[in-house]
Amino acid sequence: MKILVLNGPNLNLLGTRQPEIYGRTSLADIEARLRARAAELGVELDFRQSNHEGQLVDWIQAARGTVHAIVLNAAAYTHTSVALRDAITAVELPVVEVHLSNIHAREEFRHRSLIAAVCRGQICGFGPESYRLGLEAAVSLASAS
Amino acid sequence: MKILVLNGPNLNLLGTRQPEIYGRTSLADIEARLRARAAELGVELDFRQSNHEGQLVDWIQAARGTVHAIVLNAAAYTHTSVALRDAITAVELPVVEVHLSNIHAREEFRHRSLIAAVCRGQICGFGPESYRLGLEAAVSLASAS
Amino acid sequence: MKILVLNGPNLNLLGTRQPEIYGRTSLADIEARLRARAAELGVELDFRQSNHEGQLVDWIQAARGTVHAIVLNAAAYTHTSVALRDAITAVELPVVEVHLSNIHAREEFRHRSLIAAVCRGQICGFGPESYRLGLEAAVSLASAS
Amino acid sequence: MKILVLNGPNLNLLGTRQPEIYGRTSLADIEARLRARAAELGVELDFRQSNHEGQLVDWIQAARGTVHAIVLNAAAYTHTSVALRDAITAVELPVVEVHLSNIHAREEFRHRSLIAAVCRGQICGFGPESYRLGLEAAVSLASAS
Amino acid sequence: MKILVLNGPNLNLLGTRQPEIYGRTSLADIEARLRARAAELGVELDFRQSNHEGQLVDWIQAARGTVHAIVLNAAAYTHTSVALRDAITAVELPVVEVHLSNIHAREEFRHRSLIAAVCRGQICGFGPESYRLGLEAAVSLASAS
Amino acid sequence: MKILVLNGPNLNLLGTRQPEIYGRTSLADIEARLRARAAELGVELDFRQSNHEGQLVDWIQAARGTVHAIVLNAAAYTHTSVALRDAITAVELPVVEVHLSNIHAREEFRHRSLIAAVCRGQICGFGPESYRLGLEAAVSLASAS
Amino acid sequence: MKILVLNGPNLNLLGTRQPEIYGRTSLADIEARLRARAAELGVELDFRQSNHEGQLVDWIQAARGTVHAIVLNAAAYTHTSVALRDAITAVELPVVEVHLSNIHAREEFRHRSLIAAVCRGQICGFGPESYRLGLEAAVSLASAS
Amino acid sequence: MKILVLNGPNLNLLGTRQPEIYGRTSLADIEARLRARAAELGVELDFRQSNHEGQLVDWIQAARGTVHAIVLNAAAYTHTSVALRDAITAVELPVVEVHLSNIHAREEFRHRSLIAAVCRGQICGFGPESYRLGLEAAVSLASAS
Amino acid sequence: MKILVLNGPNLNLLGTRQPEIYGRTSLADIEARLRARAAELGVELDFRQSNHEGQLVDWIQAARGTVHAIVLNAAAYTHTSVALRDAITAVELPVVEVHLSNIHAREEFRHRSLIAAVCRGQICGFGPESYRLGLEAAVSLASAS
Amino acid sequence: MKILVLNGPNLNLLGTRQPEIYGRTSLADIEARLRARAAELGVELDFRQSNHEGQLVDWIQAARGTVHAIVLNAAAYTHTSVALRDAITAVELPVVEVHLSNIHAREEFRHRSLIAAVCRGQICGFGPESYRLGLEAAVSLASAS
Amino acid sequence: MKILVLNGPNLNLLGTRQPEIYGRTSLADIEARLRARAAELGVELDFRQSNHEGQLVDWIQAARGTVHAIVLNAAAYTHTSVALRDAITAVELPVVEVHLSNIHAREEFRHRSLIAAVCRGQICGFGPESYRLGLEAAVSLASAS
Amino acid sequence: MKILVLNGPNLNLLGTRQPEIYGRTSLADIEARLRARAAELGVELDFRQSNHEGQLVDWIQAARGTVHAIVLNAAAYTHTSVALRDAITAVELPVVEVHLSNIHAREEFRHRSLIAAVCRGQICGFGPESYRLGLEAAVSLASAS
Repeated sequence: MKILVLNGPNLNLLGTRQPEIYGRTSLADIEARLRARAAELGVELDFRQSNHEGQLVDWIQAARGTVHAIVLNAAAYTHTSVALRDAITAVELPVVEVHLSNIHAREEFRHRSLIAAVCRGQICGFGPESYRLGLEAAVSLASAS
Repeated sequence: MKILVLNGPNLNLLGTRQPEIYGRTSLADIEARLRARAAELGVELDFRQSNHEGQLVDWIQAARGTVHAIVLNAAAYTHTSVALRDAITAVELPVVEVHLSNIHAREEFRHRSLIAAVCRGQICGFGPESYRLGLEAAVSLASAS
Repeated sequence: MKILVLNGPNLNLLGTRQPEIYGRTSLADIEARLRARAAELGVELDFRQSNHEGQLVDWIQAARGTVHAIVLNAAAYTHTSVALRDAITAVELPVVEVHLSNIHAREEFRHRSLIAAVCRGQICGFGPESYRLGLEAAVSLASAS
Repeated sequence: MKILVLNGPNLNLLGTRQPEIYGRTSLADIEARLRARAAELGVELDFRQSNHEGQLVDWIQAARGTVHAIVLNAAAYTHTSVALRDAITAVELPVVEVHLSNIHAREEFRHRSLIAAVCRGQICGFGPESYRLGLEAAVSLASAS
Repeated sequence: MKILVLNGPNLNLLGTRQPEIYGRTSLADIEARLRARAAELGVELDFRQSNHEGQLVDWIQAARGTVHAIVLNAAAYTHTSVALRDAITAVELPVVEVHLSNIHAREEFRHRSLIAAVCRGQICGFGPESYRLGLEAAVSLASAS
Repeated sequence: MKILVLNGPNLNLLGTRQPEIYGRTSLADIEARLRARAAELGVELDFRQSNHEGQLVDWIQAARGTVHAIVLNAAAYTHTSVALRDAITAVELPVVEVHLSNIHAREEFRHRSLIAAVCRGQICGFGPESYRLGLEAAVSLASAS
Repeated sequence: MKILVLNGPNLNLLGTRQPEIYGRTSLADIEARLRARAAELGVELDFRQSNHEGQLVDWIQAARGTVHAIVLNAAAYTHTSVALRDAITAVELPVVEVHLSNIHAREEFRHRSLIAAVCRGQICGFGPESYRLGLEAAVSLASAS
Repeated sequence: MKILVLNGPNLNLLGTRQPEIYGRTSLADIEARLRARAAELGVELDFRQSNHEGQLVDWIQAARGTVHAIVLNAAAYTHTSVALRDAITAVELPVVEVHLSNIHAREEFRHRSLIAAVCRGQICGFGPESYRLGLEAAVSLASAS
Repeated sequence: MKILVLNGPNLNLLGTRQPEIYGRTSLADIEARLRARAAELGVELDFRQSNHEGQLVDWIQAARGTVHAIVLNAAAYTHTSVALRDAITAVELPVVEVHLSNIHAREEFRHRSLIAAVCRGQICGFGPESYRLGLEAAVSLASAS
Repeated sequence: MKILVLNGPNLNLLGTRQPEIYGRTSLADIEARLRARAAELGVELDFRQSNHEGQLVDWIQAARGTVHAIVLNAAAYTHTSVALRDAITAVELPVVEVHLSNIHAREEFRHRSLIAAVCRGQICGFGPESYRLGLEAAVSLASAS
Repeated sequence: MKILVLNGPNLNLLGTRQPEIYGRTSLADIEARLRARAAELGVELDFRQSNHEGQLVDWIQAARGTVHAIVLNAAAYTHTSVALRDAITAVELPVVEVHLSNIHAREEFRHRSLIAAVCRGQICGFGPESYRLGLEAAVSLASAS
Repeated sequence: MKILVLNGPNLNLLGTRQPEIYGRTSLADIEARLRARAAELGVELDFRQSNHEGQLVDWIQAARGTVHAIVLNAAAYTHTSVALRDAITAVELPVVEVHLSNIHAREEFRHRSLIAAVCRGQICGFGPESYRLGLEAAVSLASAS
């Protein structure tokens, strides 16, 4: 089983920016932890990041037939991208939406997720733990389908 | 470590109502699965359900000093209860909001959660798995605090 | 055939409060009239009132398998209760929504009924007659199902 | 006693259009049933249909002094006609608003009735039964005034 | 000079309906007063009323090349008719919008006039005087053009 | 009989500003025309202008017991002043709202008049003619009261 | 094959009104061009115009069983008529919505089409060409059904 | 004279929760202070708290004929309960709405009070002083009625 | 201790306008009562009224360093003045917002107070008693600071 | 004459995704059909697709001076891209907006097109036929300019 | 060349109020710095402040023919004054809107500027530097006109 | 000191498109002028343009540690990009938002800037001068930090 983990814009800066808020965990740290957990679960991981909406759409499209589920932290594009929404619908794979922070406790415009309605479920607010829980949910969904 | 799992209105009907939609898993089944996982994690579980908003508020208040975290599926009260929101704020315990269904993919009025902003995070859309993931998140939060 | 007639908050005060507006018909009078009509139609009546949202939810849940239809005047909870809405959906019984007054001719916030979309139909504005018409509609629906 | 039953646009197609949805009861069938019930109640019936808003206004105006109450299914004009609303207010007759379907369970724009606030009450969702209940309500109102 | 005075739905009932509110002045009275004033001003009057939106549109269209200005009390259609708006724009005649009552002091939905933006001006709230002032404004506009 | 004519902010610039739009009629010209018409009608005129909201409120208050009606062009304060609205209500005199331009055909925020609901009527869109018609309406209202 | 082409209010004035804006093409010109194209395509044309909403509803209803598709320029009624919407739904014929102008580039209230959701598609902004394209689309849809 | 003081959900936690924000005054302290002031004023006090909306409705209903005025801190139910609103209207007693904090300076959803329009007045923002001022207002209203 | 009591537009008319609604208590009466209560409390009073927003801002600014608290009935400016809001913020004195009527039970636009969020608390609905309660609250706040 | 046909995000998946909904026509099929029709019309075709908003902007900019009109199916970017809107305005070429589905009959957020107001017209709902009609419209516009 | 610098309500308190937020620069300091820069640029400065909306309108009106451009910090009136907007439009001078703080990063109601649309441009967020930049922009605009 | 000047989509077309509106100043001209001014101020300039949102995000991220401030004309992305907003927050550099036109005087959707709240200030409406003023503001901010 293979799981694609996609990270949206600015997540590459994790750990070095505003560490007093976001902590000192970098995206590489998250990837390492996730790979460890994936190994335990016996699943392969493809972990990527891009600041480009079109690139993320390309990667989601390419996932069809090659991976079994997607863990997606779309970051800022969560709130503005219909293109990602349509890509998720098109590939017909289970997608788990994750967020480090609790988006429902932040600015009003972050409460609305354009992709939530086409993902299978949402996990947010648990920091790096959101990714681990998201991976487990993805594996569970992929196993069931 | 002790975790309180609270279930709101109509969840007592799970498994017997509209099984073609909600599946045949009853609330008792969910409790059983959760108790098994809790045993593995070495945590004690207090599992309750009520159709009464005031009763849920009473239970949350009583949790202070007796449990380490709460997993809360407030069901219908998610969308209408400021009293639950204030109770969560008052007890100063980590609360994990869970939902069986993906509330963001249902009727417009279910997209707004009055309690999300005061919970630590939200997990929704994974059926009974939402509870297991929620328990793990709660244990993780309780361990960190 | 058995019909459950449920009355929401403050309806127990009918007849004694603001009689110049609501008339001098008490809830007991309405019950008496309705029992007379039920006798003519050969149906059994279960007539209840509560100021507690949770109690009303409990009664609706208990109706499954014991009554054939429900006549529901949810009063104030008409406009605020998702819990009642979910209970109505869950029990899979025909529910007739009734109101003494024409809710569409009153304050703006009374125009929105949270339960209307899951009831079979609505009858409002005819005073105690709303109940009699509601009973006939309920009997008709129960006969057809 | 004489009751006017008015039917708005497209109701003349009942029974032949989308029978799998609206059933095979035609407007003529509804009229026949209603005439039977009117005979039992000892009231005279004037039953009409038009696709023209102005025609419906003309008929409501002409009702003053000649009928004792109106049963009105304004269909599409329910949601768009201030002219019907003003006509109802002007003739000072009790008007009962009826609908075959439960308008509160359909598209958002059908939830708003421009005429509801000036009718005495509303009955919707019971199919042809809505007319019979409406007739009884109208007779009751006309008797009381 | 010839002025067309158009009256919309339900204005034919003036004087006989709710006289305690609208007074005992009938539409015929208003026409008589207006004809007297027109005679003083030396202008010809064409005074009409219809409950049909399409008829009012027909009359406005026919006015082109035959009258010099229009005084229009569109009544209920003021708030719902884009067809009247387009007709006014098309005939390229000065149109004066009049209302007996002060529409800005009535129900919210009467505050919005769909035709106001394409009329030359609006006079409302002065009862029958609104017509006399409207006639004078129309004559003044026609003289200036 | 004495009529107060009040002019709000920036009306003192009439005639000299943007003459290609507003024409070359100054406020003094309007006053002169109005005095001529007042003489014909045998009424006394008090004609004033101020850019200060508080000054306009003071003048309206002082009108009680000294004038019989007010013609008010509140200009910009039409859309922002609750103080003027309350003053109009308090003095219990008939007030006629006038505007040179058709406010319903201008920017969205000019469509809402905070004072319209407490004035007796509104006349707008006829340029200086709005004042003459407003004077006649005011005299008519003052004569009737 | 027979196609009905329906034209709503004020379209009969095309060519003579505001020619600097709408051009000098009259509705008769459009009909002529369309008949020429229909002849090429070997289809029969029924071309009509009315200012009356009810008349348009009557014609749509009558189309069932007699024509194979409808090309509809509802003009002003596009934005206000639920009756037309219901008629289109009822007749179960493919309907192509056309507009001369680009309604999405005009006033805000013209952006909303009440009938768009029940038509098969929309063509707007190409002047008389909108009709020709609409005819081709209608023929294509009728051929496929 | 007897005054009922009602406290809504979570107020029982006062003093022990977030003392840095709400201070160390418990609900028992407030009650004690209020009883002292009541003794000075020579009025009897009935002081209660509940987390249950239905219980609060029951208590308000029971107040009729037994107390002379009500001081009500509905807490969270202020913003969500139509049932409390209807109960207040029904008992026809003067009700004074009080709040410890200035609800107009908090989250947007706390600015709207569903009960304010049926209470006689509102006092908020003065901490425990809000209760003392509320008691004095209630006594004053009860004396005047 | 010195307290400034500020009164906004149209309050100078109290007692003489619409006495059947506002009672026969004039602003001078309120001032007299308040001075009596101030004497009992041993505080000095500065009592002023203006119809000018700018004047009220000037007075609030001048209060810094000369008074200990402000009781403010901003009347109409409550709903429209950001300038008053900023002045209150700037002087850093406790300000108590008072209103004679219950603003939450009046027109929609009076429900919003632009100054409430920067005042310490609000007292409304008790007629002249609102001032006495406001004075006591102000003295209490000034004592505590 | 040369026409640019631009396709937005996810259109490259046509034919293989959800064929039960979108049919089995691929984008290559559409291109082939369109090239055939272009050959008949004697025009050259440039047919492209990208998932990247910036790429689409680049191509539109490059079209100036090299093509005579654009047929644009912006897909998801239709609803979110101001950048495409500005590019269309800047190149001053006739642009025809096309959609396979009837966007007005889909989710609410798809009803709003950010680019419609700057395109010459819109064609939607006819599947691959939308492209053919769009090509004809584009050729017609390019011929006329 | 002469430039008018106008300051709205509460700006006279700069430097002494909340210095930890607004800094210790007084309005006099700003004036001094601006005069120094004006001397360098060889332009004359007229620097004023008022808390009165009407006074600001008077000053703007008087600027016509005497100054070449205006730098305007309307403070609170930015968000509420249509009178200032109309004055700016009337005087036909270039007006530069300046703000010390970034109004787009403050409370929601400060995001809307009623005067922005009629000023030539806006500079905000740079503290006293906003004035210097505003002066340079004003000089540049005055030189170009 | 080094300043990054970033230009968003379509700004590369400046000078050649719609010169009657935007003037004949190209982006190269603006760069040249800005380099001249930068030389005077002794600061280094990095001047770039892209139509790709992701590219702009990449450049802002790369600025950390290499430049001292950013002047950003995000053009169309100003109104749609949360990704740019998050990038600005993440790099913790002073950012000055500039626009050639006065965005507050254009279409409604251009009034909302998604990035304004996280920039230090905004300068708009002065054409190429906006860039020069923006550069000075950036230098000033960079000097102060």
